[in-house]
Amino acid sequence: MSTDETKLARVALTWLAEPGTRSVYALVEQIGPVGALDLLLSGGAPERTLRSAVAARAAAGDARAVAAEALTRGERLGARLVTPDDDEWPAQVRDLRRLALSGATRRVDVETDPPLCFWVRGAWPLGETLAHSVAVVGARAATPYGSHVATELGYGLADREWTVVSGGAFGIDSAAHRGALTAGGRTVAVLACGVDRPYPMGNAALFDRIAETGLLVSEWMPGAEPLRPRFLIRNRVIAAATRGTVLVEAAARSGATQTLNRALGLRRHAMVVPGPVTSAMSVGGHEVLRERPDARLVTNLAHVLEEVGRIGYDLTPPARAPERPRDRLDEEATQVLEALPRRRALDLESVAARAGVDLRTAMRKLSLLEELAMVVRRDGGYALAPPPASPT
Amino acid sequence: MSTDETKLARVALTWLAEPGTRSVYALVEQIGPVGALDLLLSGGAPERTLRSAVAARAAAGDARAVAAEALTRGERLGARLVTPDDDEWPAQVRDLRRLALSGATRRVDVETDPPLCFWVRGAWPLGETLAHSVAVVGARAATPYGSHVATELGYGLADREWTVVSGGAFGIDSAAHRGALTAGGRTVAVLACGVDRPYPMGNAALFDRIAETGLLVSEWMPGAEPLRPRFLIRNRVIAAATRGTVLVEAAARSGATQTLNRALGLRRHAMVVPGPVTSAMSVGGHEVLRERPDARLVTNLAHVLEEVGRIGYDLTPPARAPERPRDRLDEEATQVLEALPRRRALDLESVAARAGVDLRTAMRKLSLLEELAMVVRRDGGYALAPPPASPT
Repeated sequence: MSTDETKLARVALTWLAEPGTRSVYALVEQIGPVGALDLLLSGGAPERTLRSAVAARAAAGDARAVAAEALTRGERLGARLVTPDDDEWPAQVRDLRRLALSGATRRVDVETDPPLCFWVRGAWPLGETLAHSVAVVGARAATPYGSHVATELGYGLADREWTVVSGGAFGIDSAAHRGALTAGGRTVAVLACGVDRPYPMGNAALFDRIAETGLLVSEWMPGAEPLRPRFLIRNRVIAAATRGTVLVEAAARSGATQTLNRALGLRRHAMVVPGPVTSAMSVGGHEVLRERPDARLVTNLAHVLEEVGRIGYDLTPPARAPERPRDRLDEEATQVLEALPRRRALDLESVAARAGVDLRTAMRKLSLLEELAMVVRRDGGYALAPPPASPT
Repeated sequence: MSTDETKLARVALTWLAEPGTRSVYALVEQIGPVGALDLLLSGGAPERTLRSAVAARAAAGDARAVAAEALTRGERLGARLVTPDDDEWPAQVRDLRRLALSGATRRVDVETDPPLCFWVRGAWPLGETLAHSVAVVGARAATPYGSHVATELGYGLADREWTVVSGGAFGIDSAAHRGALTAGGRTVAVLACGVDRPYPMGNAALFDRIAETGLLVSEWMPGAEPLRPRFLIRNRVIAAATRGTVLVEAAARSGATQTLNRALGLRRHAMVVPGPVTSAMSVGGHEVLRERPDARLVTNLAHVLEEVGRIGYDLTPPARAPERPRDRLDEEATQVLEALPRRRALDLESVAARAGVDLRTAMRKLSLLEELAMVVRRDGGYALAPPPASPT
């Protein structure tokens, strides 16, 4: 069988049945793409739903001719087809074989097998680009807060030479891509339609920039329409292709939370940026954090790198308030310092009594505090030193 | 031994050594308050630090006389002393006996034994008021967001007949109390100074309102000063007296996060309200959520009630987007609906091909969608129904 015949069969199969269909992927595994295509076209699909879906599609056109036309069209617009036979195939998407979403009943949650092929626009090899990648996903109707956070994360990840992966929607997706582009890094938009089809139209210029410096990727052939279920079908690829997924903002029961569920199902790092509880756009993320103990709350780039980073790299120190001189005092010195009233001076005996230490200790600690310029002698006693003047 | 003598001894002991001191509590358990006081005053404290603390205090005054004066002063201003011998003693604070904070080295983290007594202003019985209570704690330097959330929680809890418990600080503490007062419910301020000492002064009116309809509570005698370590000593009581603690806003390494750590150490419900990652006032809460898997993220009253509520009551449904008519469609009807383009009409064959269903199924589902007014016939084919006019 020629490579071209195999490629053509993969494209035709993706047109006949939506990507992810388990019985199609299983057939391809068993008898190869060409055999699988022959079987489907001769009405031999193993299950009824698939048979009627294939029949409906086949009634609308010749699958091989459609695929051949797509390959020509792809070539014309500079989109290449990448299949598992190519060196640049991202092997990690094969993990989708073992994805089983709990409580799945909808077709998009059940039919989550690996892609048969990818259409790619952009110069970088697909596999290498995705090997070291993090998905940043979230709502179309993002708030300025969410867009800000997604831009910062996109920028920071790209700046640390991680590839940013997202969809092509307005809101969080666009913000993450823009951040990565600003950092001069690589960003990948995984689309739910043909890579030649700017959807939404308003992102056409963004897609062109991404194709120049990163990659536009799709399972669907050039010209394919962004039908609604395709966004959810596509989401499994975003989760599977990356080391982890960060959810920035999402309404309850939204597509972005479902990308995160797929990441969780694949045992990829699933991260959520919290937000104000007064924002509807943070409800989805908070719900995931409440329901899934394996989802991790992240608030900044360091937290994300701590999750996905290589051991020994990219580790984050815990958040700390700035150190103050008094943090270095021992317990008794602290007690003595805290026994001094805000304004008045106190004699030695009163300081000792208030601090609950003996006179000798009080005297020793007051001397230390004097040396540290935290205490001054005044009115025959001891008082807090005035705060240092602010720098001018 | 008379009741009065025992009460006096408890007050004197609290004056000689800060509340929570483990060796003092152990002595009281072994030989009673009067015996413990005699022993300490005769220089027989079991450990050096305590001995010198007691000696320093004793040098400043006669412990029994100080205690007697405090009792008189308390009576004059309407503050009563409550001890474990009283019916209204909140028994749950005894759990502090088994509080062991991991990695504790500071005195306030080690000396966390139960209180010896409480000073109380307000009409309600202390134990009954605290039996069904939730602490709402957080930063003094709260943001408008944090204050809003704390007020809402205080209101909601009081409205559901839970007692709100907090400190007396500006910011989150005050917001929680105000919310509870607005709901006409009970709220309790646990102070780190005498119940006759409005600290901060700006909250004097608030304290008066709390004393009228709720309770002002302190371990320290009337007139006692709010020394800095006392806030942390006090925090163990807020954690122990309540069913659970909600942290609304806190900077990294703040007193409020330490109240939450005490709740965690006591296996009380520890809850955190997340916030914008761009806010310094949410850093402390987010860190707790990252570090302590037993801390629970909560975003609203229902979540809090779900944690602390009685089984069968106060349970919350998961967050949901409002149901849309299309949510009730079956899989194939959804596919057919989604196959229709935004503006154009399509013929039956095209609909079937795009939806990936056979002609018969397409026709059946299109009829159903027509009945539901989601699809209309137009231009010899099928099209999406125009959206319903908004109500005016």
